[in-house]
Amino acid sequence: MAHTGDPLYKQRLIPQFVTDKVKEAYPTVQSLIIDELMPLEATFLQKGFSAVWPALNKLRDKVKQQGLWLPVLHDTADNLALTLTEFAQLSEVMALSPLGHYIFNCQAPDIGNIELLGKYGSEEIKAKYLAPLIEGKIRSCFSMTEPEFAGSNPIHMATTAEKNGEQYIINGHKWFTTSADGAAFAVVMAVTDAANENPYQKASMVIVPTDNPGFELVRNISIMGETGESYMSHAEIKYNDCKVPINNLVGQAGTGFLLAQERLGPGRIHHCMRWIGICERALDMLCKRVMSRELDKDKPLASKQAIQFWIAEIRTGIDAARMMVLQAAQAIDQYGVKASRVQVSQIKFFVADLLMNTLDRAIQAHGALGVTDDTVLSFWYRHERGARIYDGPDEVHKSVVARQVLKEYKNLSAK
Amino acid sequence: MAHTGDPLYKQRLIPQFVTDKVKEAYPTVQSLIIDELMPLEATFLQKGFSAVWPALNKLRDKVKQQGLWLPVLHDTADNLALTLTEFAQLSEVMALSPLGHYIFNCQAPDIGNIELLGKYGSEEIKAKYLAPLIEGKIRSCFSMTEPEFAGSNPIHMATTAEKNGEQYIINGHKWFTTSADGAAFAVVMAVTDAANENPYQKASMVIVPTDNPGFELVRNISIMGETGESYMSHAEIKYNDCKVPINNLVGQAGTGFLLAQERLGPGRIHHCMRWIGICERALDMLCKRVMSRELDKDKPLASKQAIQFWIAEIRTGIDAARMMVLQAAQAIDQYGVKASRVQVSQIKFFVADLLMNTLDRAIQAHGALGVTDDTVLSFWYRHERGARIYDGPDEVHKSVVARQVLKEYKNLSAK
Amino acid sequence: MAHTGDPLYKQRLIPQFVTDKVKEAYPTVQSLIIDELMPLEATFLQKGFSAVWPALNKLRDKVKQQGLWLPVLHDTADNLALTLTEFAQLSEVMALSPLGHYIFNCQAPDIGNIELLGKYGSEEIKAKYLAPLIEGKIRSCFSMTEPEFAGSNPIHMATTAEKNGEQYIINGHKWFTTSADGAAFAVVMAVTDAANENPYQKASMVIVPTDNPGFELVRNISIMGETGESYMSHAEIKYNDCKVPINNLVGQAGTGFLLAQERLGPGRIHHCMRWIGICERALDMLCKRVMSRELDKDKPLASKQAIQFWIAEIRTGIDAARMMVLQAAQAIDQYGVKASRVQVSQIKFFVADLLMNTLDRAIQAHGALGVTDDTVLSFWYRHERGARIYDGPDEVHKSVVARQVLKEYKNLSAK
Amino acid sequence: MAHTGDPLYKQRLIPQFVTDKVKEAYPTVQSLIIDELMPLEATFLQKGFSAVWPALNKLRDKVKQQGLWLPVLHDTADNLALTLTEFAQLSEVMALSPLGHYIFNCQAPDIGNIELLGKYGSEEIKAKYLAPLIEGKIRSCFSMTEPEFAGSNPIHMATTAEKNGEQYIINGHKWFTTSADGAAFAVVMAVTDAANENPYQKASMVIVPTDNPGFELVRNISIMGETGESYMSHAEIKYNDCKVPINNLVGQAGTGFLLAQERLGPGRIHHCMRWIGICERALDMLCKRVMSRELDKDKPLASKQAIQFWIAEIRTGIDAARMMVLQAAQAIDQYGVKASRVQVSQIKFFVADLLMNTLDRAIQAHGALGVTDDTVLSFWYRHERGARIYDGPDEVHKSVVARQVLKEYKNLSAK
Repeated sequence: MAHTGDPLYKQRLIPQFVTDKVKEAYPTVQSLIIDELMPLEATFLQKGFSAVWPALNKLRDKVKQQGLWLPVLHDTADNLALTLTEFAQLSEVMALSPLGHYIFNCQAPDIGNIELLGKYGSEEIKAKYLAPLIEGKIRSCFSMTEPEFAGSNPIHMATTAEKNGEQYIINGHKWFTTSADGAAFAVVMAVTDAANENPYQKASMVIVPTDNPGFELVRNISIMGETGESYMSHAEIKYNDCKVPINNLVGQAGTGFLLAQERLGPGRIHHCMRWIGICERALDMLCKRVMSRELDKDKPLASKQAIQFWIAEIRTGIDAARMMVLQAAQAIDQYGVKASRVQVSQIKFFVADLLMNTLDRAIQAHGALGVTDDTVLSFWYRHERGARIYDGPDEVHKSVVARQVLKEYKNLSAK
Repeated sequence: MAHTGDPLYKQRLIPQFVTDKVKEAYPTVQSLIIDELMPLEATFLQKGFSAVWPALNKLRDKVKQQGLWLPVLHDTADNLALTLTEFAQLSEVMALSPLGHYIFNCQAPDIGNIELLGKYGSEEIKAKYLAPLIEGKIRSCFSMTEPEFAGSNPIHMATTAEKNGEQYIINGHKWFTTSADGAAFAVVMAVTDAANENPYQKASMVIVPTDNPGFELVRNISIMGETGESYMSHAEIKYNDCKVPINNLVGQAGTGFLLAQERLGPGRIHHCMRWIGICERALDMLCKRVMSRELDKDKPLASKQAIQFWIAEIRTGIDAARMMVLQAAQAIDQYGVKASRVQVSQIKFFVADLLMNTLDRAIQAHGALGVTDDTVLSFWYRHERGARIYDGPDEVHKSVVARQVLKEYKNLSAK
Repeated sequence: MAHTGDPLYKQRLIPQFVTDKVKEAYPTVQSLIIDELMPLEATFLQKGFSAVWPALNKLRDKVKQQGLWLPVLHDTADNLALTLTEFAQLSEVMALSPLGHYIFNCQAPDIGNIELLGKYGSEEIKAKYLAPLIEGKIRSCFSMTEPEFAGSNPIHMATTAEKNGEQYIINGHKWFTTSADGAAFAVVMAVTDAANENPYQKASMVIVPTDNPGFELVRNISIMGETGESYMSHAEIKYNDCKVPINNLVGQAGTGFLLAQERLGPGRIHHCMRWIGICERALDMLCKRVMSRELDKDKPLASKQAIQFWIAEIRTGIDAARMMVLQAAQAIDQYGVKASRVQVSQIKFFVADLLMNTLDRAIQAHGALGVTDDTVLSFWYRHERGARIYDGPDEVHKSVVARQVLKEYKNLSAK
Repeated sequence: MAHTGDPLYKQRLIPQFVTDKVKEAYPTVQSLIIDELMPLEATFLQKGFSAVWPALNKLRDKVKQQGLWLPVLHDTADNLALTLTEFAQLSEVMALSPLGHYIFNCQAPDIGNIELLGKYGSEEIKAKYLAPLIEGKIRSCFSMTEPEFAGSNPIHMATTAEKNGEQYIINGHKWFTTSADGAAFAVVMAVTDAANENPYQKASMVIVPTDNPGFELVRNISIMGETGESYMSHAEIKYNDCKVPINNLVGQAGTGFLLAQERLGPGRIHHCMRWIGICERALDMLCKRVMSRELDKDKPLASKQAIQFWIAEIRTGIDAARMMVLQAAQAIDQYGVKASRVQVSQIKFFVADLLMNTLDRAIQAHGALGVTDDTVLSFWYRHERGARIYDGPDEVHKSVVARQVLKEYKNLSAK
């Protein structure tokens, strides 16, 4: 291949975690992302998602033909049925370009909804909502965060789903409902049992189709200078007396928080591996830049010690992060989300910090070019600033880890 | 006034630097910025510069009426004729809102060109270009950086101004020519004497009107997701055989670098004071947010130790920065730009670092809201990322300081 | 002088703060410290305080002859009667070598006790304890911290001074009573009114001569590998039924905390200026090292960018710190300790952080030599680690600053 | 056991790396270190190595009886013959107390010399020097660093070993020869072929018995306030015409650097695992402190968010470091030292940084107690500051990593 020798194609597989399935799929995923998706980046960055949508769809077809569609799905015959640990290793490669997960139908928030509905949806829900989602015919969204309450304390929530005969009537105000624009349905977190003494058993998840007359997409929120559109957007939504059949309930009533936790665990692994992929790409861009940019004749930027330190620190940070994330994925595969909670919190803040640092330094190494949209760095700098906030801000995850560490000492003191 | 007690109106004047002129103008500037300009922010953030332009012009008129127009200008009877140190103290207040300097006609790059042409322009240039610029009737731009060369080593430059009879013929490729869109003229840095042995004496500054047939505005560069427009833009420009009278030369031929240094010194003070103003505003927003956002009943975000540390570190950082910057401004006032070079380099990286840290933490304290364009934080996070790059990246300024410190030890070793 | 050109002799005076008194004394202090005290350093580092004590006494005589003895003292005719701001500028020079303050009789804890007793001691106390302390004939100590309670919350204290007729009977357990070994008396903080509702009015300060039969110096605490001796020591002390006349009370009963605050304010300025002096010396050593140490022929360590960044960051940090500390000193001079509390907290953590960073980098630049006692760096690295702990840990000072900043917003919210 | 529930006994084994041998030995090593060695710490810290030497010898006997003596040794029937990866996992436990490795006869520098002589020593050397070293009857040292040259560039060295008939005559000046005091012999790095064009082939390793008349132990260098003694010391040595048989040459002439690299690779793994053990102990002490130290009634220090963040960051840092170090150890086991060079450089700076941060925060959490020698923290703070310097300073290792990363891009640019 033409790319022989380009370090971007280097296989970053770790013996302790790799499997035959991963080994086999890896080069194909690499080629799809690097050879076929990356050439669309410039158009995407300058003209937006819809400008590359037709090309993305062609790539989606190719992915299906190669048997790599939704490779983490276990329920059907056609999928690779990867473990989370296996998927994590491919996920990193998909993340080398912003829309990588989309062409494999593994994009958030759909992947999370697919896992959720596959595990907890009724047969009816599976047939009506899950099946077309798996096929990639529709998109979905997940509606949890409310502007009036701190997301870091999820027991406060004002959206309600009142039972009225065979229907739930949903009222509430949400925002940061990612990809709502153009989605077919929303999984909505709402209070169904406000009187419950246990604050963690008040809420449930209910499916609301977006063509419901009470579903009001107030706006695509302008985030970091971009309103976005379609899949690339984050909506503010009002639910005004949305009536849906009680069968739209996901799982049991009162299990909203439980399911959210269940959904967030693998979701955080997905994020972390995605961030590692972004870091690899940013480091690759940094290296290519500093080798080619000359400060003076035959004195490339790479000769500067500060630049060298950045490279060493990023390379080492990524290598540490990958080990940590894969070990956390393996813990989830083996012991479940709940038992792996601390590990997941650890990687959440460790990798988010690495990510922001890496992007910042890659931009700095690019000089003026780094802040333009002529490279993908600025896109990530803006779109990933949220990494340290969503799915629990760093500060919350650090407290989770500390409390767990200190718990063992509490017993000790009590003796 | 209605704002009694709002800490944003606190006067942050330092006895060692304040003068009567500053004391007198300060509250008026505060009121213009906080009471009159800030209400326009939301429209500006959502709809862009042109949406607030008419309102800005009214404010400009008000500024003129109050005798605060271009207060740093010394040459005319109508201006306050502030020293750089005095202006720095007002500049900080102007910076509390993104377009503050604009309404005082102190906005970069015009302010720099005004200082430059006032000092080095011929009478003809002053009449034709400077006068309307001072009046605010036209805008201008400064065209130096080239995409093909590292800005941190200014001796490399490909744009040429060839003398041909009574004309210069200018050819070259520039970018990051801020506010070129809509400007009446550009001050262009170009090589006039390629053969000169001294690499710092090869270039000159020449005025090129933007209606010159060879002036090609290739694009407003998309930066951090925004193409921008008019004053709020950064252009890529091609100069194709632009013919201009030799009288358009600014100062002497071969003095391009000298003038650039002269221009950059006060420019960096302007930037630093502007950054301090942004930090004050961001800290104010942070404090307001953490006092009002509750994690739980009667437990505001402000009760968190991590938040408190951020506040203490930012407050202390700003206080240190202000002292440093004012001292550097005073050094320039007293001893000139060249003698103050090290101090200017010190504040450039010290304050830029403070700025990015402050914005980052203010965003983090705002949670999801922090990444939206519902506040001004995201605007600055994107627009000021360049602070650590333009006018010399941090890395260059640190080396400047170190070399100067070590110079004294060189003499020592030699003994 | 022989030292012409050695940057260590550079005068680092700031126009906004310097006075004629400072200007005049400065070179003499420099010469005493650099030319006369520094040559004793090696002996001090290898053999301890007592080995240089005779030489120090000779230097003390010289200081007296030059009229620089206790220059901050105001009450007698022979002293310079410097303001705190003036003294701070000389204090920095004294700090260039570990025993600098000692030869001027400005060493902690004696300087603090001198200020305290001068302000609050009865005539009897002044005659008996203060006078010989001022003359340098005796030493003293200050006994406040208790091992059983967190120093950061001073309302908890178990030492008591019970009134019994004309005597106080003192019982308690203290540690970190600096320089108790060889001191003539201790100023002891003890609870005199346990029943007082106001926790800040329970304690008083009482003088206990160290020859009191109940004064038990348990040990000189081994700190960072050194037990120390004499002036250079920190004692653990038991007060066992120490009977002293009630006239040994300093100030009014119940004013212990008030006096402690009064004592700590200037004390923190003293510390901060001392730390700045240490930073200047460490940076000087770093520069001399990197200019003379060759990695390869004609390639000194100073050519490394990482080293250059350290120099630039330290130089800038010191310059910022000096401005901050002098401004805080001036605030104390003008408005008193209480009104300057926030500024004092700001410099306490800002300069302590700078100090530890500077020492760490100076050591790193010295390589293996840096960890030996062949230079003074290791002494400071060990002896000053406490800087971020004593007189209030960084964490407490940051909260003080944040609470003060947020106080203004509380009023705002309440409206 | 009495220690049930004390988190210090928690087994921190990683499934991907653990083996049966490790699993079996682990609890015994834990018990020897925690139950038997730690009780000697206070005496060691207050009175030095010789005060605990008899007790250490008894523990050494116990270790032999339990079959854990020199468990990394492969050549004899009595040893566990652990791989480096296996040993690393026990090494961490040994490091929980300062003399842990000593009681297993795995202490530096002896362990390095044992590995070296086992691999490259002649039969004569093995019988005369290696055998008693293995038995723990003698100690040894390694003499490489010279005060006059930067250790980071090993091609510069002035010590020579001149061949003269059947003898080498060694002359030179070394320092930081750890544990020379009381050692039976030194392995000396000396130039044997100054004329060799390849600067890496000039030096050889030669054994010099310390009773050689020309072996002059100038001093035990005072390091961070301690001269030390016996095993706990670092000597400055002069080699004055030391005559030794040519058979004392280790390996081939001219292989000095090669052997040094060979020796340093596993040595750095040893250091890193030791540092991880220290971090675990420091974190354990920190947790115990903050759970028991009350700021106010029922408000332990552990309730502070800053403390919690420290715990979370240290816990996560250690977990990342352990994975990295074990993977590097495995790389050495599988592919040798040379092939693992970059990984070894990565862990060297990553873990040294973690170590110093962890110790610093553990001290800060202990307040005044933290700087005393009443805990082991101060010992490590002083003794391990060298971690970022010895065996290559951080700065050198970062450059090694960066150059290796960039090497792949060099090929790319060349195309």
